[in-house]
Amino acid sequence: MTKEYIVAILGATGAVGTRLIEQLEQSTIPVKSIKLLASSRSAGKILQFQGQNVVVEEATPESFTGVDLVLASGGGSVSARFAPEAIKRGAVVVDNSSQWRMNDNVPLVVPEVNEEALKNHQGIIANPNCSTIQMVVALAPIKAKYGLTRVIVSTYQAASGAGQSAWEELVAETTAHNAGQEMHANILPVKNAEHHYPLAYNLLPQIDVFEDDGYTHEEWKMIHETKKIMFGDKNSKAVKVTGTAVRVPVPIGHGEAVYFETEAGTGATSGDIQSILSKAPGVVLEDNPKEQLYPQPINAEGKRETFVGRVRPDLENDDSFHMWVVSDNLLKGAAWNTVQIAERLVALNLVRVPESAVNNFSED
Amino acid sequence: MTKEYIVAILGATGAVGTRLIEQLEQSTIPVKSIKLLASSRSAGKILQFQGQNVVVEEATPESFTGVDLVLASGGGSVSARFAPEAIKRGAVVVDNSSQWRMNDNVPLVVPEVNEEALKNHQGIIANPNCSTIQMVVALAPIKAKYGLTRVIVSTYQAASGAGQSAWEELVAETTAHNAGQEMHANILPVKNAEHHYPLAYNLLPQIDVFEDDGYTHEEWKMIHETKKIMFGDKNSKAVKVTGTAVRVPVPIGHGEAVYFETEAGTGATSGDIQSILSKAPGVVLEDNPKEQLYPQPINAEGKRETFVGRVRPDLENDDSFHMWVVSDNLLKGAAWNTVQIAERLVALNLVRVPESAVNNFSED
Repeated sequence: MTKEYIVAILGATGAVGTRLIEQLEQSTIPVKSIKLLASSRSAGKILQFQGQNVVVEEATPESFTGVDLVLASGGGSVSARFAPEAIKRGAVVVDNSSQWRMNDNVPLVVPEVNEEALKNHQGIIANPNCSTIQMVVALAPIKAKYGLTRVIVSTYQAASGAGQSAWEELVAETTAHNAGQEMHANILPVKNAEHHYPLAYNLLPQIDVFEDDGYTHEEWKMIHETKKIMFGDKNSKAVKVTGTAVRVPVPIGHGEAVYFETEAGTGATSGDIQSILSKAPGVVLEDNPKEQLYPQPINAEGKRETFVGRVRPDLENDDSFHMWVVSDNLLKGAAWNTVQIAERLVALNLVRVPESAVNNFSED
Repeated sequence: MTKEYIVAILGATGAVGTRLIEQLEQSTIPVKSIKLLASSRSAGKILQFQGQNVVVEEATPESFTGVDLVLASGGGSVSARFAPEAIKRGAVVVDNSSQWRMNDNVPLVVPEVNEEALKNHQGIIANPNCSTIQMVVALAPIKAKYGLTRVIVSTYQAASGAGQSAWEELVAETTAHNAGQEMHANILPVKNAEHHYPLAYNLLPQIDVFEDDGYTHEEWKMIHETKKIMFGDKNSKAVKVTGTAVRVPVPIGHGEAVYFETEAGTGATSGDIQSILSKAPGVVLEDNPKEQLYPQPINAEGKRETFVGRVRPDLENDDSFHMWVVSDNLLKGAAWNTVQIAERLVALNLVRVPESAVNNFSED
């Protein structure tokens, strides 16, 4: 008999949460029963799973008793509080927040890239940042053949990456502006920051808070998560990664102008890179300038794949290339990658918390 | 007695043309009289100059008889046809189109960067591409002190860079989308291209047509114009320039994530770069992460300056930095830079066509 799993979705009512429900419905995971958990504010709401009404419950530590698998997208503080409670009760947590990503006991996983990191999990598996995921999906197959020594990325990130409310704010601002009314910003660039600026018809070169070195935390995440996922060490010196993260007035679908250098002397051409990408798992190559074919957010919305185009060499530096990468930040960047990790855990029979693990994590 | 100039504006009714009129009104140029020229379609329209009504005339070769100075923004084919006719009649042409920029007899000028190139003009002075101008304004003072060996730029370009109609299309698409209606694209990414795509809530990694090497012509322009303006040679090997140009759903104000390398061993820090930029002509440094101060298109709109922020080092490569550059693409990127060139021509007493010059240019 196929094992069936009791699955809890933590943060079920947000932009990612509702997509976690959809992606789980469409997944290969045999779901015995589902629990939809959220804050007290959303408790009592009724959502659907596989055609059945499910009442959203307030998350408490006891919510996880009997649960096999938790898909969490409630944000950092929610995951900090509840992930240890869940694994204490034997539930494996796949977490969308940034809370556990840099923890040495937590694999940071994009299944197309480093599925093998799942094998030694200690109860928590972290889902990377949205902008990191789509970049490493495109870079990993190139690295496998030609190596990778340097990445310089500029992001064009959608409002929904900051949550449902940021997305709604963008639409409200745009509507107001088109009607000749004032725009009101209360959420972006960062909900708890002192200043808020309109995103409608604008660009905000701030995603997440600033670090002391002048980088935003989003840029920091792209650097260290890329190193951890692709090179097994968040401070790996094998690759140099840097970039600029910018919020753009797009609801869904991050764009990235990725500049990268392969190992010297491989003789790789753009054609070689395109050929690799055309066969890479999770990648759709959309690259035909003559036909004006290139990735666009409005085409990527609702799809699980990462779309890559505009592959071309730096004309003055050997072994150096550009590519343009687009993916649905709420799917591959969040809900789908999370469910995909869960699918792999199920397939590899890894939905179990090692006995030794429960003391590895605390809220601090 | 101060010399006064008869000025013609060619392409007076477009997004740049109307701003040429405003910038000329606000300039130091003593204007004796003005001629507003356009295609037959716009002839008869009435515009204002210094409080007076001026009837737009259809441009013909004879329109330039008696004119001292032509500010042209009618596009490449209009400039190809009329610039030689104007200089044949003794009028100096400052041209906004790409038609003459790479001609060895035509200085390509950003006054803050290479005013000295005006001195040997042969009747036509070219105004660079909008995305190039704001980048070189920010890079030039850095180069002057620390050298410049490499530039990798990702652009975030506003709809108005493709003209008034592209800007109107963006607003119409956005309004339609917000009302749940279908979006109709007839102009972007390139008016005469086979395929048109909506820009509203989207990103278009195509500006201008594609070259055979996979770069767009916009990217080609940024490479070769930067070399010509800053290094005196459109194919200079002294600096390596590459990048990706992307259209974003913003009406006015281009953003640019500029990554650059200075000469090795100067020991330049981000603080040094910021200090230079804070005193650089035409630059406003807006760079204070603690105060969430950084350039934004909605703040740059209507201003002549180039705004720079997010200056920080690449943490893993010496002598390498990021900065974020924003400017009003219709002002410093077009109308203001054109009028500024004209101001400098007047100040340097260079509003005259050398006798030898008239045979240097032909429509081909």
